[in-house]
Amino acid sequence: MDRRTFASRISHRVAALLGATLASAALLAPTAQAAEPQPVLRGTGDLGIVIERAIGQVQIVDTTARSRIATVAGLGDLSHASAVFSRDGRYAYVFGRDGGLSKIDLLTATLVRRVVQAGNSIGGAISQDGRFVAAQNYEPGGVRIFDAQTLAPVADIPARYGDAGQTSKVVGLADAPGVGFVFSLFEAGEIWVADLSADPAHPTITRYTGIGKQPYDGLITPDGRYYLAGLFGEDGLAMLDLWQPERGVRKVLAGYGRGEEPLPVYKMPHLRGWAMADGRLYLPAIGRHEVLVVDTRTWQEVGRIAVKGQPVFVMARPDGREIWVNFAHPDNSHVQVIDTLTQKITHNLEPGKVVLHMEFTPRGEAVWISARDDNKVVVMDTRTHRPITELPAESPSGILFTVRAGRTGF
Amino acid sequence: MDRRTFASRISHRVAALLGATLASAALLAPTAQAAEPQPVLRGTGDLGIVIERAIGQVQIVDTTARSRIATVAGLGDLSHASAVFSRDGRYAYVFGRDGGLSKIDLLTATLVRRVVQAGNSIGGAISQDGRFVAAQNYEPGGVRIFDAQTLAPVADIPARYGDAGQTSKVVGLADAPGVGFVFSLFEAGEIWVADLSADPAHPTITRYTGIGKQPYDGLITPDGRYYLAGLFGEDGLAMLDLWQPERGVRKVLAGYGRGEEPLPVYKMPHLRGWAMADGRLYLPAIGRHEVLVVDTRTWQEVGRIAVKGQPVFVMARPDGREIWVNFAHPDNSHVQVIDTLTQKITHNLEPGKVVLHMEFTPRGEAVWISARDDNKVVVMDTRTHRPITELPAESPSGILFTVRAGRTGF
Repeated sequence: MDRRTFASRISHRVAALLGATLASAALLAPTAQAAEPQPVLRGTGDLGIVIERAIGQVQIVDTTARSRIATVAGLGDLSHASAVFSRDGRYAYVFGRDGGLSKIDLLTATLVRRVVQAGNSIGGAISQDGRFVAAQNYEPGGVRIFDAQTLAPVADIPARYGDAGQTSKVVGLADAPGVGFVFSLFEAGEIWVADLSADPAHPTITRYTGIGKQPYDGLITPDGRYYLAGLFGEDGLAMLDLWQPERGVRKVLAGYGRGEEPLPVYKMPHLRGWAMADGRLYLPAIGRHEVLVVDTRTWQEVGRIAVKGQPVFVMARPDGREIWVNFAHPDNSHVQVIDTLTQKITHNLEPGKVVLHMEFTPRGEAVWISARDDNKVVVMDTRTHRPITELPAESPSGILFTVRAGRTGF
Repeated sequence: MDRRTFASRISHRVAALLGATLASAALLAPTAQAAEPQPVLRGTGDLGIVIERAIGQVQIVDTTARSRIATVAGLGDLSHASAVFSRDGRYAYVFGRDGGLSKIDLLTATLVRRVVQAGNSIGGAISQDGRFVAAQNYEPGGVRIFDAQTLAPVADIPARYGDAGQTSKVVGLADAPGVGFVFSLFEAGEIWVADLSADPAHPTITRYTGIGKQPYDGLITPDGRYYLAGLFGEDGLAMLDLWQPERGVRKVLAGYGRGEEPLPVYKMPHLRGWAMADGRLYLPAIGRHEVLVVDTRTWQEVGRIAVKGQPVFVMARPDGREIWVNFAHPDNSHVQVIDTLTQKITHNLEPGKVVLHMEFTPRGEAVWISARDDNKVVVMDTRTHRPITELPAESPSGILFTVRAGRTGF
């Protein structure tokens, strides 16, 4: 199986990376104005959004009342959307697949502003101080940085590399404490750190070249120290210690990847879903029905846990006692729970048809699970592992809560 | 030096524990009604309070604008006050030294309700799901649990022990994920776990007896797994693994304490200030000019860092890269910064006169420091270690931000 054939069998995410035809789009075109805000005096610490991928809409939800408050439509293509939150928890920045960046006011349930900032985008991040929102783009590649308040452009970082000045798709964008942003260049095989501390309009770029073939996604550890890029073109992960950047990028977990005889991968695991608990990192094996356990002091693999299917999201309950795992087709209606003390599966759950995402409440007493083909979100009690309630939702995918605003890498 | 003489030289906190005369007070007497809320449409994720200890007042502050929004007065004796936040980030529950429990609306800047729930109190906690606020009391001892919304009493847990049914002062109260609350009994030398999951009005109590002499404070690790009580009557700490409670309480860090020849202690360190970073716990030595470094996998001491004075708060910057330390008299106008990579002091700061507390912004780009005798709060940039701005405040002590609502043990 050559690479193109292989690629055609995996997720749209990597397929796009490998060169799908992409439509061009207008940049920075505001398309909506905010409606007059209605005063809804309430805290924002228990708010969140549910992405209704098929209809370009998000629900605003309340995790205390476990209810839907409102919906906001007109967000474009949300087929692979993600979001970050403003420092005060009032606004969500939704990154659409079509390059749209939408700022939503959770209190007034209005679309405050929307810019189509690229032709094709795969997510973004917000800076540690909340001043800047960054979007990573496939087409035209590079990173664009915006003022979080106005969405006015602040900086444009074209991802040029090589002698011919080609541009690269950007993946694995994360906020780096004290610095700005860190991200990977797919075609270039590079990791870049953009330091905004001196002059946000002209970030200082540090390039790490030759970090490995085809980084396809990245993550930053919850403390903001380690940046890791998953490699599609070879086994292993590229790791940059941001506390000691002078040491450069090194390869870790050489056994992590497709291996010599790659299995078909139905959906690429999300690296951001990686879970840290008790000094160990739990991560989805690629293509295998396994969750890998890594000691973060040595970066050695210390265990593998057999699971139901190909893991997609591997997420730690906020207290680190449990790891919740969902799966790619054909096992995507299952969720398994791993006890981090025994490293054994303690619960086999089937909360609904086609589970796409899970989000824990801030302190983890509940988890919200999107069941796309049942058109519902299931709220589960993490102590009893039983459903508490369900909310109707149109093909729900991502569920994201405002608590992310206060956390690095979210 | 006998124990009483020793006690007279340490903080009022432990002095009170050892038997100060305490005034009785009315229980559960509501003393204020909410003013009509004014619509202030804003997120609550960047709000916080500054306790103005001398005048029974709190400031409401905005960590984005770095400004004071409003003040709320009439909170009683705030000489040793602490606070927790509602799940939505809108309300602060302030525990006063006089047993007062005050619920403050941060959006309307009003005192919603105030109950004097005990004669003498030293703090409290809020349950994982945000439904219950618990106060730990010296007089009459025990723990009282309230409905977080109404402050109506839910449960009363008298701390009775021994054959004669004496009551004990309660210290080190913390929220325990999935269960309820955990706390220590000073005179009894016990740790109790109160499980509210079946019937909040009748918590199931598990008692651990003979855990050591005179537990004077406690903490729960950020993941909610380990509960530790500092012992005043002997060296070492009592530890309960809440993931494996059947193992009981064991003694750790036998070298931690006053030792054979105790030094005068000018202010007891706060155990809640202990800092976790990179799998290590940094904790204030008692009486010594040292910060201890503990490996949390083995619970062995792995290092000691010499510092300016007797440490009080030892706090990790949210990214774990730095530990900030303040000190007891006569070094209480100094702050030192330890680099967790090298374990060396990198900065000696003097932000103001009599530094009582420090609070990091949610993702740690800044730290707010209260300088009591300069009547100001200093906001510092944690990257440059320079002041950004100052805010006037009347004898400020505790600074607490709403991000605590989403974290265990805060």
